[in-house]
Amino acid sequence: MQSEGKQIKVGVLGATGTVGQRFITLLAEHPWFVIHALGASPRSAGKQYSKAAAWKQTTPIPAVVRDMIVHECKPEHFADCIIVFSGLDADVAGDIEGAFRAAELIIFSNAKNYRRHPDVPLVVPLVNASHLSMIPQQRSLHCPPLKKGFIVTNANCSTTGYVIPLSALERAFGPIESVLVTTMQAISGAGYPGVPSLDIMDNVVPYIGGEEEKMEWETLKILGGISQGDDGLKAFDMHAQYPLRVSASCNRVPVIDGHTECVSVRFTRRPPPSPQQVREALAAFTPMAQSLGCPSAPRRAIVVHEEPDRPQPRLDRYYQDGAGVSVGRVRQCPVLDIKFVVLANNVSIGAATSSIINAEIAIVKGYIPS
Amino acid sequence: MQSEGKQIKVGVLGATGTVGQRFITLLAEHPWFVIHALGASPRSAGKQYSKAAAWKQTTPIPAVVRDMIVHECKPEHFADCIIVFSGLDADVAGDIEGAFRAAELIIFSNAKNYRRHPDVPLVVPLVNASHLSMIPQQRSLHCPPLKKGFIVTNANCSTTGYVIPLSALERAFGPIESVLVTTMQAISGAGYPGVPSLDIMDNVVPYIGGEEEKMEWETLKILGGISQGDDGLKAFDMHAQYPLRVSASCNRVPVIDGHTECVSVRFTRRPPPSPQQVREALAAFTPMAQSLGCPSAPRRAIVVHEEPDRPQPRLDRYYQDGAGVSVGRVRQCPVLDIKFVVLANNVSIGAATSSIINAEIAIVKGYIPS
Amino acid sequence: MQSEGKQIKVGVLGATGTVGQRFITLLAEHPWFVIHALGASPRSAGKQYSKAAAWKQTTPIPAVVRDMIVHECKPEHFADCIIVFSGLDADVAGDIEGAFRAAELIIFSNAKNYRRHPDVPLVVPLVNASHLSMIPQQRSLHCPPLKKGFIVTNANCSTTGYVIPLSALERAFGPIESVLVTTMQAISGAGYPGVPSLDIMDNVVPYIGGEEEKMEWETLKILGGISQGDDGLKAFDMHAQYPLRVSASCNRVPVIDGHTECVSVRFTRRPPPSPQQVREALAAFTPMAQSLGCPSAPRRAIVVHEEPDRPQPRLDRYYQDGAGVSVGRVRQCPVLDIKFVVLANNVSIGAATSSIINAEIAIVKGYIPS
Amino acid sequence: MQSEGKQIKVGVLGATGTVGQRFITLLAEHPWFVIHALGASPRSAGKQYSKAAAWKQTTPIPAVVRDMIVHECKPEHFADCIIVFSGLDADVAGDIEGAFRAAELIIFSNAKNYRRHPDVPLVVPLVNASHLSMIPQQRSLHCPPLKKGFIVTNANCSTTGYVIPLSALERAFGPIESVLVTTMQAISGAGYPGVPSLDIMDNVVPYIGGEEEKMEWETLKILGGISQGDDGLKAFDMHAQYPLRVSASCNRVPVIDGHTECVSVRFTRRPPPSPQQVREALAAFTPMAQSLGCPSAPRRAIVVHEEPDRPQPRLDRYYQDGAGVSVGRVRQCPVLDIKFVVLANNVSIGAATSSIINAEIAIVKGYIPS
Repeated sequence: MQSEGKQIKVGVLGATGTVGQRFITLLAEHPWFVIHALGASPRSAGKQYSKAAAWKQTTPIPAVVRDMIVHECKPEHFADCIIVFSGLDADVAGDIEGAFRAAELIIFSNAKNYRRHPDVPLVVPLVNASHLSMIPQQRSLHCPPLKKGFIVTNANCSTTGYVIPLSALERAFGPIESVLVTTMQAISGAGYPGVPSLDIMDNVVPYIGGEEEKMEWETLKILGGISQGDDGLKAFDMHAQYPLRVSASCNRVPVIDGHTECVSVRFTRRPPPSPQQVREALAAFTPMAQSLGCPSAPRRAIVVHEEPDRPQPRLDRYYQDGAGVSVGRVRQCPVLDIKFVVLANNVSIGAATSSIINAEIAIVKGYIPS
Repeated sequence: MQSEGKQIKVGVLGATGTVGQRFITLLAEHPWFVIHALGASPRSAGKQYSKAAAWKQTTPIPAVVRDMIVHECKPEHFADCIIVFSGLDADVAGDIEGAFRAAELIIFSNAKNYRRHPDVPLVVPLVNASHLSMIPQQRSLHCPPLKKGFIVTNANCSTTGYVIPLSALERAFGPIESVLVTTMQAISGAGYPGVPSLDIMDNVVPYIGGEEEKMEWETLKILGGISQGDDGLKAFDMHAQYPLRVSASCNRVPVIDGHTECVSVRFTRRPPPSPQQVREALAAFTPMAQSLGCPSAPRRAIVVHEEPDRPQPRLDRYYQDGAGVSVGRVRQCPVLDIKFVVLANNVSIGAATSSIINAEIAIVKGYIPS
Repeated sequence: MQSEGKQIKVGVLGATGTVGQRFITLLAEHPWFVIHALGASPRSAGKQYSKAAAWKQTTPIPAVVRDMIVHECKPEHFADCIIVFSGLDADVAGDIEGAFRAAELIIFSNAKNYRRHPDVPLVVPLVNASHLSMIPQQRSLHCPPLKKGFIVTNANCSTTGYVIPLSALERAFGPIESVLVTTMQAISGAGYPGVPSLDIMDNVVPYIGGEEEKMEWETLKILGGISQGDDGLKAFDMHAQYPLRVSASCNRVPVIDGHTECVSVRFTRRPPPSPQQVREALAAFTPMAQSLGCPSAPRRAIVVHEEPDRPQPRLDRYYQDGAGVSVGRVRQCPVLDIKFVVLANNVSIGAATSSIINAEIAIVKGYIPS
Repeated sequence: MQSEGKQIKVGVLGATGTVGQRFITLLAEHPWFVIHALGASPRSAGKQYSKAAAWKQTTPIPAVVRDMIVHECKPEHFADCIIVFSGLDADVAGDIEGAFRAAELIIFSNAKNYRRHPDVPLVVPLVNASHLSMIPQQRSLHCPPLKKGFIVTNANCSTTGYVIPLSALERAFGPIESVLVTTMQAISGAGYPGVPSLDIMDNVVPYIGGEEEKMEWETLKILGGISQGDDGLKAFDMHAQYPLRVSASCNRVPVIDGHTECVSVRFTRRPPPSPQQVREALAAFTPMAQSLGCPSAPRRAIVVHEEPDRPQPRLDRYYQDGAGVSVGRVRQCPVLDIKFVVLANNVSIGAATSSIINAEIAIVKGYIPS
C-alpha cells in the first residue's frame, strides 16, 4: 500500500449505512485518502464504529475505523477533513450537506437531494467530469459566497450504468435521439434493510418509486453540456440542442449486486452505425479519469463481451472492483437502431466508487485547495 | 366434478416431461377430456407412469394416471384418442407429430417444430382462434390428403403473454406499428433439468437461445390475418398490410413461474390512445374462447392492475389458474406511445392451458369429428 | 360453499398483518365462521380493509372483507363475535388479548404472550387438544372470575411441525427421552417486512432470536399432560414423569413458506422401534380433530414419504392446504435411535390453521357457549 | 508475486470442470507452482483451454492457461509435471488416477475414488497431515512397487468443514464419543450443471446421495490415527481405541458457495469442557500446515465468532480466501454436551485449496522428490 501518499483527510457521512460501509471499505485501501471522521445518526453518535454499524460487507471492518468514535453529522466534527463523502439517506441529506457546504466543507455526495440543483454538478466520472467547471459559480452564487465549500453529486445507480456507453456512443457517432431502457436492478440498490425478502424472492417487482423519472431526467443533465447565458452565467443545457427522448422501465429482481439494463438507441445520424462500429467505439472509449491518472478509475471503462450470454451480474460485477461497466449483445434493433445489454455494479461505480473518482478528478483538476 | 361429460379420450405425448406433467394435471380435472394414453421416450415405455415420471408438480400425481403404462410415441398406441396433446421436446416433436398426423390423429402441440409451417395454425387461444380455419387446407394439401388428422400449435410462452394485450389494443385502436419488448422469464420456461442453479441464482442471464427470433416472428403470424391467393389457397399474411416492427430482448431471471414483460408500443393511428383509453380497452377485451363457453378459458382474459407495483409473478401468476394475463403500469412512453407491464404464467396460458383451450375451441367450432 | 352453516361470527385481530391475512383467507371460505369484525393498529382503524392492508396473498382479497371498516383492537368493537382470532404482534398482544378476555371474549391466539401462562392451553390441534380441559380453571382463577372468556394459544411454527410426529411416536412407543432438532425455517415465519432480502438471499442465518428456547420449552408443555395437585388445581406437568431433553438449532433459509426440520430421537423403551415400525406408526396417526369432524383438520395428519429426497418445502407444503405435516427419510440414527425429516407449512398448520382447528375442537367439545 | 520461486511444474486433470477451474484460479497465483499441463475429456482435447472450458469463475481466465492446449488425461502428456492435481469426476477418476500413479506420477486428488483405500491418505490439511506418512507403504505395496508415484486424496467438502473444529476439540479435550451433524450445503458442491434450478429455488432438498455415508466414514479415517500391525504394516485405525459414533443429516439449500453445519458433540471426558473452554480451544488451534509455512494455509485455521448470528455463508465464506473455517454459536447442548455452527467454503478448503495445501505439506516434509 502506498501509505506515503495517504495524507488527505476525509470524512464519511452516513458511515453506518450500506453506502457508508462501502465508502469505508474503499477509502481504507485508498492511496491518497485517510479516514479521519465518521458521521451518523444521533443514535450512533458517541459509539465505537464497530458497535454502531451492523457491518454487512464480505470483508472485515477495516482496522482503521474499528474503534473510531462516530460523531453526529455536524460540520464542527469534520473541520479537519479536506473532503467529506456522503452516503446519507435522502431524508436528511439535504439539510446536512447544505450545512456542511455553508461551513466551507467539500462534499461528494451519493444522495439525490442536490442532483437537480442548477449549480451542482451531477457527475458520472467516466462521462461528464467537465461539469466540475460549474464549481466556481456554485461557490460565488452561494449566499454568502464561499471560498472552498461545494457539493458534487454522483448519479442514481441505474443512470450511471447506461450513460457510460451512451456517452461513448455520442462521442463516436454524434447525438442520440431516443433511448429506451429496461432495468433489472439488484436489491442492494435499495439499501438496508431495503427490500423485504418476502417481496423479492421468486419474484420481479416491476416498479421502483421515482427511479424512472430519475433516469429520464438525470440522463439529460449528464449527457448535456454547459451553456453560457447573456448574463454570463453558466447553465446545464439538458442536451437541448439535440432533444433526447428517454423512456425508462425499472424493475427489481432477485440479484444481490449489479444492475442489468437492456438498452435500445436511435441515433440522429443517418445511416446509423453498425453493431460492429458500436462495439469498437465502446471498447475504445477512454474517459478523462483514466488519462488524469485517477487511482480508482478502471483500466477499461467499458468491457465489450463477445459471448452471446454476457454480461451477467454474478460473473461480471466484480471485474475491476466494479469500477467499469460491461456491455454485451450489441446488435441491431428492429424498432430503433441498435440494442445492447449493460451491466454496472450498483454498489461500486453506481455509488461510492463514483464519488471517490469524482473527488480524485477534482483534486487533479485543482478544484480542491490543498 | 362433471364426470358425466368426461367422454372425449385424449392422449399426452412427452407425458413425463414438465409440459406433459402440466397437461396431465389439467386434463385429470377437465370436464370433457379423459386421459386414455400416455407417450414418452423408449426409456420410459412399458413402465407405470408413477415410476417413469419424476413428478415435480405441487399436487400429487392424479390417480387416473398413476398406474397407467407409458407407451412409446407411436400412433398405434393412440388410435383410440380423439385428441393428442404434445409436450414433446423439439428434437423429436417434428417426426413424431408428423407421423401422428399422417395416421389421422389430431395434435395440439406445445412444440415449436410446426409453428412456422404455412398450413399450420399458430394459435394463442385468446387471440387468433380464427386461424383454425386453415385446418381444412392443411388436411387437403397433406400428401396423401387427410380426412381427420391435423396439427395446431400454440405459441412460445413469451410470445403468448404479450400478444394478448397487443391483440386487444389492435382490436380497439387499429394496427400497431412498432413494439419493443424486454422479457424477464421464469426458469420453468426452460423445462427440466433446464437452467442449472449455478447459472441463475443471484443472477440474470440476458440471453435465451432463439427466443428473440421466435417472439419477433410469431407475433406477426399470430396478429396477422389470413389472405386468399389467386390460386384459391389461403396464407397467413404476417400482418402484411400494416408492417409491424418487433424488437425483443429476452432475459432469464431467478423466478420459478411467470414471465414478466415490459412492453412499449407505437400505434399507426395518430393521435394514439391515452393510457386511460388503453386501460379500458384491455379490461374490456373478451376473446372468442369465452363467448364459446370453453371451460378452460379464463373469466377475465386481461386483468388490469391499478396498483403501481403490479403485476408481480409471485403474487399474480396463480390467478384464474394462470389462464389469463395481468397488465399493469399502463403509462405514456416518451419514445413510442404507450408502455405497460404484462405478466403471463408460462406454464399455464404460456403452454399446456393454451393447447387445451385451442382443443376446446376446435371442438365447439366443429373441427374435430365426434 | 356450505353457506347455510355460516353463522358463527368471528373477529380477527392484527387483520392487516401476514397472519391476519392468512386468517382472513381461511375464514372467508370456512363452512362455520363468518367474518364480522377486523381489528388492527390505530393507523389502520377507520379505513376500508382493502386500503388498510398491503395484501400479499396469492389469492385476491376476499369480497367479504374488502370494504369492511377496520377497527382499533378494543373489545367493544368485537362484542358480537363468538370467537376472536388473534394474529397480533407480540409487542401488543399481551395487553390486548388480556383485555379481550377480561371482557368475556374468547381468543384463539397465534401470539406467544400467553403460551407460558400456567392456565392457558398451548394447543397443537393434532397433538394435545385435551389441554382445552384447562379452560374452566382459567376462567375461575381469573380475577374477577369469567363466565365465557378465555385464551387458547397455538404453538410456535417450528414447534408445531415436529411435535406432531413426536406425539405420534409417544403414543405408539411410549416416552421419548431425547430429541435433537435442527430447523431450516422459511422467511414467512418472520412476518412482513420481516427478513431483509440482503440478509437471506444466497445465505443461511444460523440464528433466530428466542426460537430455540421456544421450541425446547413449548415441546415439554405440549407433549406433557395435566396433573392435579393436592389443592385440587390442575397444572401442565411439562412431561415431568419422563424428563424429556430437547436440543434445538434454528436456522433461517431462503425458502418462502415451509419449515424443514431434521429430527433425531431417543426413546425410553429398549430396544427402540425400527424405522419401519416408526413409519407405520406415523402413517397410522389419527388425531382427535379428525374423529371430531373438524372441517379444517387434514385428512391425513402425517404423510410419510418413501422417496429418498422428500419432503421438500416447495413440492409438499401445499398438500391438504398445509394442514398436515410431511415426514420422510425415516432411518436409524447412529447416535440416538431414529432420525427423520419433517416438513410443516408454517403459515398454515404452523399458524392460522392451528388456531382455527383449535376453535373447531373447542366448539365441538362444548367449550364455547352458542 | 514471487515469481522467482515459481518453478514446480504442475498439471490439472479435469481442468474444464468446476473443481478444475478453481485449481487453475489458485495455481495461477501460487508462489511455488506453475501450470504446465491441462487434462480433460477427449471432447476437449486438442482445443485451447479458453475454447474448451465454460469458464464460470468471477475472475477472468488466467492468461497463463488461456491459450494452453488441453490434453486427454493420459500420463504421457504429464510426464514433466512434478505434481498432478485431479478435479476429475468420480466416474473416470479411478482408472485415470490409478494409471497416473502407475506411471510414477504424484496425484493430489479431490475425487472420492481412492479415499477408502487402505494405503491412501485421506488428508484434511489442517487436521491429519501426519497421515502422509503412509506414502512409503503405498509405494512399496503397489504392484509393481513405485519409486515416486502416489495418490493423496482430500475429503468430501462437507466432511472437511466440521472435522477441523472436531480435531481441535480432540486435541484439547481428548476423544469425542458422539457427533450429530446437520448440514446445509451449497449448490456448488454438486458441480456444474449440478443442481437444476427448478429443484432448489425456494426449496430445501433434505437428501444428497451418498453424502451422509461419506461424512460418517471419512470422519473416522481422518480423526483416527495409524496403527502398526504384527506384520509391520501400518493401517488407518478409524478412531478404534475410542469408538466414535457419527450421525449426519445432509441437506441442499439455495446458497451458492459455503456449507453451513450444525454440530453437537459429546466428549468422552466427564465433565465435558464448558462453552467458553471450547471457544478458546478452537481459537487457539494451530495446525501443522501453518507452522510449516505453507503459503496456502490460512493465517487463522478457525475463526470463532462472538456475534449470535454468525457465521453466515454469504458474509464469511470469502475470509482468507476460504482457506479456514468459521465457528459460531458455541453453547451447551441439552442432549449431548456442546453444540456449535461451522461454516466452510466448499469450493476452497472443501476442495481445491485442500489439495494444494496437502501438496505444499508433502513438499516441505520431503515426500516429493525435487
